[in-house]
Amino acid sequence: MRGDRPGTPTLVECGVIRTRAREPLACRLAEIYDGVQQIIAEHRPTVLSIEDVFYSRNVRTTVVLGHARGVIMLAAQQSGLAIHEYPPAAIKKAVVGNGAATKEQVQFMVTRLLRLKSVPSPADASDGVAAALTFLLAPRLPTIASLSSRSQVGR
Amino acid sequence: MRGDRPGTPTLVECGVIRTRAREPLACRLAEIYDGVQQIIAEHRPTVLSIEDVFYSRNVRTTVVLGHARGVIMLAAQQSGLAIHEYPPAAIKKAVVGNGAATKEQVQFMVTRLLRLKSVPSPADASDGVAAALTFLLAPRLPTIASLSSRSQVGR
Repeated sequence: MRGDRPGTPTLVECGVIRTRAREPLACRLAEIYDGVQQIIAEHRPTVLSIEDVFYSRNVRTTVVLGHARGVIMLAAQQSGLAIHEYPPAAIKKAVVGNGAATKEQVQFMVTRLLRLKSVPSPADASDGVAAALTFLLAPRLPTIASLSSRSQVGR
Repeated sequence: MRGDRPGTPTLVECGVIRTRAREPLACRLAEIYDGVQQIIAEHRPTVLSIEDVFYSRNVRTTVVLGHARGVIMLAAQQSGLAIHEYPPAAIKKAVVGNGAATKEQVQFMVTRLLRLKSVPSPADASDGVAAALTFLLAPRLPTIASLSSRSQVGR
Protein backbone atom coordinates (compact mmCIF):
# COMPACT_ATOMS: atom_id res chain seq x y z
CA MET A 1 0.00 0.00 0.00
CA ARG A 2 1.18 3.53 -0.78
CA GLY A 3 0.59 6.25 1.79
CA ASP A 4 3.38 8.63 0.85
CA ARG A 5 1.35 10.80 -1.53
CA PRO A 6 -1.17 13.43 -0.43
CA GLY A 7 -4.79 12.27 -0.27
CA THR A 8 -6.05 8.77 0.28
CA PRO A 9 -3.74 5.78 0.59
CA THR A 10 -3.62 3.56 -2.50
CA LEU A 11 -3.72 -0.22 -2.59
CA VAL A 12 -0.90 -1.47 -4.82
CA GLU A 13 -1.31 -5.21 -4.34
CA CYS A 14 -2.80 -7.66 -1.89
CA GLY A 15 -3.03 -11.42 -1.69
CA VAL A 16 -2.17 -14.53 0.28
CA ILE A 17 0.70 -17.01 0.15
CA ARG A 18 -0.87 -20.45 0.19
CA THR A 19 1.05 -23.57 1.18
CA ARG A 20 -0.11 -27.17 1.25
CA ALA A 21 -0.97 -28.47 4.71
CA ARG A 22 0.38 -31.91 3.73
CA GLU A 23 3.90 -30.62 3.16
CA PRO A 24 6.47 -30.67 5.96
CA LEU A 25 6.41 -27.52 8.07
CA ALA A 26 9.96 -26.56 7.03
CA CYS A 27 9.00 -26.60 3.31
CA ARG A 28 5.98 -24.44 3.99
CA LEU A 29 8.09 -21.97 5.97
CA ALA A 30 10.58 -21.72 3.09
CA GLU A 31 7.71 -21.03 0.65
CA ILE A 32 6.34 -18.26 2.89
CA TYR A 33 9.81 -16.74 3.33
CA ASP A 34 10.52 -16.84 -0.42
CA GLY A 35 7.09 -15.36 -1.17
CA VAL A 36 7.57 -12.45 1.22
CA GLN A 37 11.08 -11.83 -0.11
CA GLN A 38 9.72 -11.69 -3.68
CA ILE A 39 7.04 -9.16 -2.74
CA ILE A 40 9.61 -7.00 -0.94
CA ALA A 41 11.97 -7.15 -3.95
CA GLU A 42 9.14 -6.20 -6.31
CA HIS A 43 7.54 -3.32 -4.43
CA ARG A 44 10.39 -2.14 -2.17
CA PRO A 45 8.20 -1.19 0.81
CA THR A 46 9.69 0.54 3.85
CA VAL A 47 7.30 -0.85 6.48
CA LEU A 48 5.91 -4.26 7.42
CA SER A 49 2.60 -3.97 9.24
CA ILE A 50 1.67 -7.27 10.87
CA GLU A 51 -1.13 -8.45 13.12
CA ASP A 52 -0.02 -9.44 16.59
CA VAL A 53 -0.16 -13.13 17.43
CA PHE A 54 -3.69 -14.45 17.40
CA TYR A 55 -4.17 -16.67 20.42
CA SER A 56 -6.53 -19.32 19.12
CA ARG A 57 -8.11 -21.85 21.42
CA ASN A 58 -6.01 -24.47 19.68
CA VAL A 59 -2.48 -23.89 21.03
CA ARG A 60 -0.97 -25.95 18.20
CA THR A 61 -2.47 -23.55 15.62
CA THR A 62 -1.09 -20.55 17.51
CA VAL A 63 2.38 -22.12 17.65
CA VAL A 64 2.46 -22.99 13.93
CA LEU A 65 1.35 -19.42 13.23
CA GLY A 66 4.30 -18.27 15.35
CA HIS A 67 6.69 -20.22 13.06
CA ALA A 68 5.19 -18.50 10.00
CA ARG A 69 5.31 -15.06 11.63
CA GLY A 70 8.96 -15.72 12.52
CA VAL A 71 10.05 -16.21 8.90
CA ILE A 72 7.94 -13.24 7.70
CA MET A 73 9.54 -10.95 10.28
CA LEU A 74 12.96 -12.35 9.37
CA ALA A 75 12.48 -11.50 5.69
CA ALA A 76 11.35 -7.96 6.59
CA GLN A 77 14.24 -7.46 9.02
CA GLN A 78 16.81 -8.66 6.47
CA SER A 79 15.49 -6.10 3.97
CA GLY A 80 15.64 -3.28 6.52
CA LEU A 81 11.89 -2.69 6.81
CA ALA A 82 10.48 -1.06 9.94
CA ILE A 83 8.19 -3.62 11.58
CA HIS A 84 4.94 -2.56 13.23
CA GLU A 85 2.82 -5.08 15.11
CA TYR A 86 -0.80 -4.39 15.97
CA PRO A 87 -3.19 -6.40 18.17
CA PRO A 88 -6.49 -7.23 16.38
CA ALA A 89 -8.36 -4.67 18.54
CA ALA A 90 -5.95 -1.88 17.50
CA ILE A 91 -6.57 -2.68 13.83
CA LYS A 92 -10.35 -2.58 14.32
CA LYS A 93 -10.05 0.65 16.31
CA ALA A 94 -7.93 2.33 13.61
CA VAL A 95 -10.00 1.21 10.63
CA VAL A 96 -13.53 1.30 12.08
CA GLY A 97 -13.10 3.45 15.18
CA ASN A 98 -14.24 0.62 17.43
CA GLY A 99 -11.92 -2.06 18.85
CA ALA A 100 -14.80 -4.54 18.99
CA ALA A 101 -15.91 -4.07 15.36
CA THR A 102 -17.10 -7.09 13.38
CA LYS A 103 -15.18 -8.60 10.47
CA GLU A 104 -17.84 -7.21 8.09
CA GLN A 105 -17.42 -3.68 9.47
CA VAL A 106 -13.65 -3.89 8.97
CA GLN A 107 -14.09 -5.12 5.39
CA PHE A 108 -16.62 -2.36 4.68
CA MET A 109 -14.27 0.36 5.92
CA VAL A 110 -11.21 -1.12 4.13
CA THR A 111 -13.18 -1.05 0.87
CA ARG A 112 -14.41 2.49 1.49
CA LEU A 113 -11.14 4.03 2.72
CA LEU A 114 -9.27 2.68 -0.30
CA ARG A 115 -12.15 3.45 -2.71
CA LEU A 116 -12.22 -0.13 -3.96
CA LYS A 117 -15.08 -1.58 -6.00
CA SER A 118 -15.25 -4.69 -3.80
CA VAL A 119 -13.83 -6.18 -0.62
CA PRO A 120 -10.26 -7.49 -1.09
CA SER A 121 -10.55 -11.25 -1.35
CA PRO A 122 -9.89 -13.78 0.12
CA ALA A 123 -10.75 -12.66 3.65
CA ASP A 124 -7.16 -13.20 4.83
CA ALA A 125 -5.93 -10.72 2.21
CA SER A 126 -8.48 -8.20 3.49
CA ASP A 127 -7.06 -8.69 7.00
CA GLY A 128 -3.59 -7.90 5.69
CA VAL A 129 -4.86 -4.74 4.00
CA ALA A 130 -6.51 -3.67 7.28
CA ALA A 131 -3.19 -4.12 9.11
CA ALA A 132 -1.42 -1.98 6.47
CA LEU A 133 -4.11 0.72 6.76
CA THR A 134 -3.62 0.73 10.52
CA PHE A 135 -0.03 1.88 10.10
CA LEU A 136 -1.19 4.79 7.93
CA LEU A 137 -4.17 5.75 10.11
CA ALA A 138 -2.99 5.07 13.67
CA PRO A 139 -1.54 8.05 15.51
CA ARG A 140 2.16 7.46 15.92
CA LEU A 141 4.85 8.82 18.15
CA PRO A 142 7.43 10.77 16.14
CA THR A 143 10.40 8.63 15.23
CA ILE A 144 14.02 9.72 15.41
CA ALA A 145 14.11 9.84 11.59
CA SER A 146 11.05 12.10 11.34
CA LEU A 147 12.34 14.39 14.10
CA SER A 148 15.70 14.86 12.40
CA SER A 149 14.09 15.57 9.02
CA ARG A 150 11.81 18.09 10.72
CA SER A 151 14.70 19.86 12.39
CA GLN A 152 16.41 20.09 9.00
CA VAL A 153 13.25 21.63 7.53
CA GLY A 154 13.26 24.18 10.37
CA ARG A 155 16.72 25.47 9.64
CA MET B 1 27.77 -34.41 16.33
CA ARG B 2 29.34 -37.11 14.18
CA GLY B 3 27.70 -40.52 14.02
CA ASP B 4 28.98 -41.68 10.66
CA ARG B 5 32.06 -43.48 11.94
CA PRO B 6 32.03 -46.88 13.64
CA GLY B 7 31.91 -46.86 17.44
CA THR B 8 30.53 -44.14 19.65
CA PRO B 9 29.16 -40.87 18.29
CA THR B 10 31.49 -37.90 18.73
CA LEU B 11 30.55 -34.44 19.91
CA VAL B 12 32.07 -31.88 17.51
CA GLU B 13 30.63 -28.71 18.98
CA CYS B 14 27.77 -27.56 21.15
CA GLY B 15 26.57 -24.24 22.45
CA VAL B 16 23.76 -21.73 22.58
CA ILE B 17 22.91 -18.65 20.53
CA ARG B 18 22.11 -15.91 23.02
CA THR B 19 20.11 -12.83 22.10
CA ARG B 20 19.20 -9.87 24.25
CA ALA B 21 15.62 -9.91 25.52
CA ARG B 22 15.48 -6.11 25.20
CA GLU B 23 16.03 -6.16 21.44
CA PRO B 24 13.07 -6.24 19.06
CA LEU B 25 11.92 -9.76 18.25
CA ALA B 26 12.81 -9.39 14.54
CA CYS B 27 16.46 -8.52 15.41
CA ARG B 28 16.70 -11.52 17.69
CA LEU B 29 15.26 -13.79 15.00
CA ALA B 30 17.82 -12.52 12.48
CA GLU B 31 20.63 -13.22 14.97
CA ILE B 32 19.39 -16.77 15.54
CA TYR B 33 19.02 -17.38 11.79
CA ASP B 34 22.51 -16.02 11.05
CA GLY B 35 23.98 -18.07 13.90
CA VAL B 36 22.44 -21.30 12.65
CA GLN B 37 23.51 -20.55 9.08
CA GLN B 38 27.10 -20.01 10.26
CA ILE B 39 27.16 -23.32 12.13
CA ILE B 40 25.77 -25.14 9.09
CA ALA B 41 28.36 -23.50 6.81
CA GLU B 42 31.17 -24.44 9.19
CA HIS B 43 30.30 -28.07 9.95
CA ARG B 44 28.18 -29.05 6.93
CA PRO B 45 25.82 -31.36 8.82
CA THR B 46 23.22 -33.43 6.98
CA VAL B 47 20.59 -33.55 9.71
CA LEU B 48 18.90 -31.05 12.04
CA SER B 49 17.57 -32.74 15.16
CA ILE B 50 15.22 -30.43 17.05
CA GLU B 51 13.04 -30.75 20.11
CA ASP B 52 9.32 -30.56 19.40
CA VAL B 53 7.53 -27.45 20.61
CA PHE B 54 7.55 -27.17 24.36
CA TYR B 55 4.11 -26.13 25.52
CA SER B 56 4.89 -23.97 28.52
CA ARG B 57 2.19 -22.71 30.82
CA ASN B 58 2.94 -19.24 29.51
CA VAL B 59 1.43 -19.23 26.01
CA ARG B 60 3.42 -16.10 25.09
CA THR B 61 6.69 -17.98 25.77
CA THR B 62 5.55 -20.90 23.62
CA VAL B 63 4.63 -18.56 20.76
CA VAL B 64 7.95 -16.68 20.86
CA LEU B 65 9.69 -20.06 20.87
CA GLY B 66 7.66 -20.91 17.76
CA HIS B 67 9.09 -17.82 15.98
CA ALA B 68 12.64 -18.93 16.86
CA ARG B 69 11.98 -22.52 15.79
CA GLY B 70 10.59 -21.19 12.51
CA VAL B 71 13.81 -19.40 11.52
CA ILE B 72 15.98 -22.35 12.66
CA MET B 73 13.96 -24.77 10.54
CA LEU B 74 14.09 -22.31 7.63
CA ALA B 75 17.91 -22.14 7.78
CA ALA B 76 18.11 -25.97 7.86
CA GLN B 77 15.63 -26.35 5.01
CA GLN B 78 17.48 -23.82 2.83
CA SER B 79 20.72 -25.81 3.31
CA GLY B 80 19.03 -29.09 2.41
CA LEU B 81 19.29 -30.72 5.84
CA ALA B 82 16.89 -33.51 6.80
CA ILE B 83 14.86 -32.25 9.75
CA HIS B 84 13.91 -34.57 12.60
CA GLU B 85 11.63 -33.36 15.40
CA TYR B 86 11.37 -35.22 18.69
CA PRO B 87 8.98 -34.65 21.59
CA PRO B 88 10.79 -34.25 24.95
CA ALA B 89 9.63 -37.71 26.07
CA ALA B 90 11.13 -39.34 22.95
CA ILE B 91 14.48 -37.70 23.70
CA LYS B 92 14.42 -38.94 27.30
CA LYS B 93 13.39 -42.40 26.14
CA ALA B 94 16.20 -42.61 23.57
CA VAL B 95 18.95 -41.26 25.81
CA VAL B 96 17.96 -42.71 29.21
CA GLY B 97 15.53 -45.46 28.24
CA ASN B 98 12.72 -43.81 30.19
CA GLY B 99 10.40 -41.16 28.75
CA ALA B 100 9.88 -39.67 32.22
CA ALA B 101 13.60 -39.35 33.08
CA THR B 102 14.79 -36.31 35.02
CA LYS B 103 16.97 -33.57 33.56
CA GLU B 104 19.88 -34.86 35.66
CA GLN B 105 19.49 -38.39 34.29
CA VAL B 106 19.52 -37.06 30.72
CA GLN B 107 22.67 -35.02 31.43
CA PHE B 108 24.36 -38.02 33.06
CA MET B 109 23.66 -40.24 30.04
CA VAL B 110 24.65 -37.56 27.51
CA THR B 111 28.01 -37.20 29.30
CA ARG B 112 28.48 -40.94 29.47
CA LEU B 113 27.40 -41.85 25.93
CA LEU B 114 29.73 -39.23 24.46
CA ARG B 115 32.54 -40.02 26.93
CA LEU B 116 32.77 -36.40 28.00
CA LYS B 117 34.61 -35.21 31.09
CA SER B 118 31.71 -33.05 32.20
CA VAL B 119 28.10 -32.22 31.35
CA PRO B 120 27.82 -29.94 28.29
CA SER B 121 27.08 -26.49 29.62
CA PRO B 122 24.92 -24.42 29.75
CA ALA B 123 21.93 -26.70 30.32
CA ASP B 124 20.28 -25.60 27.06
CA ALA B 125 23.34 -26.78 25.13
CA SER B 126 23.05 -30.13 26.88
CA ASP B 127 19.41 -30.33 25.73
CA GLY B 128 20.53 -29.75 22.15
CA VAL B 129 23.14 -32.50 22.43
CA ALA B 130 20.46 -34.87 23.78
CA ALA B 131 18.25 -34.11 20.76
CA ALA B 132 21.18 -34.84 18.41
CA LEU B 133 21.91 -38.11 20.22
CA THR B 134 18.27 -39.09 19.83
CA PHE B 135 18.61 -39.06 16.06
CA LEU B 136 21.60 -41.41 16.30
CA LEU B 137 20.09 -43.71 18.92
CA ALA B 138 16.38 -43.81 18.09
CA PRO B 139 15.29 -46.72 15.93
CA ARG B 140 14.39 -45.34 12.52
CA LEU B 141 12.43 -46.58 9.57
CA PRO B 142 14.73 -47.14 6.59
CA THR B 143 14.77 -44.11 4.31
CA ILE B 144 14.68 -44.28 0.52
CA ALA B 145 18.35 -43.20 0.46
CA SER B 146 19.47 -45.92 2.87
CA LEU B 147 17.44 -48.55 1.00
CA SER B 148 19.02 -47.66 -2.32
CA SER B 149 22.54 -47.67 -0.89
CA ARG B 150 21.82 -51.05 0.69
CA SER B 151 20.60 -52.49 -2.57
CA GLN B 152 23.76 -51.23 -4.26
CA VAL B 153 25.86 -52.95 -1.59
CA GLY B 154 23.93 -56.17 -2.21
CA ARG B 155 24.66 -56.28 -5.93
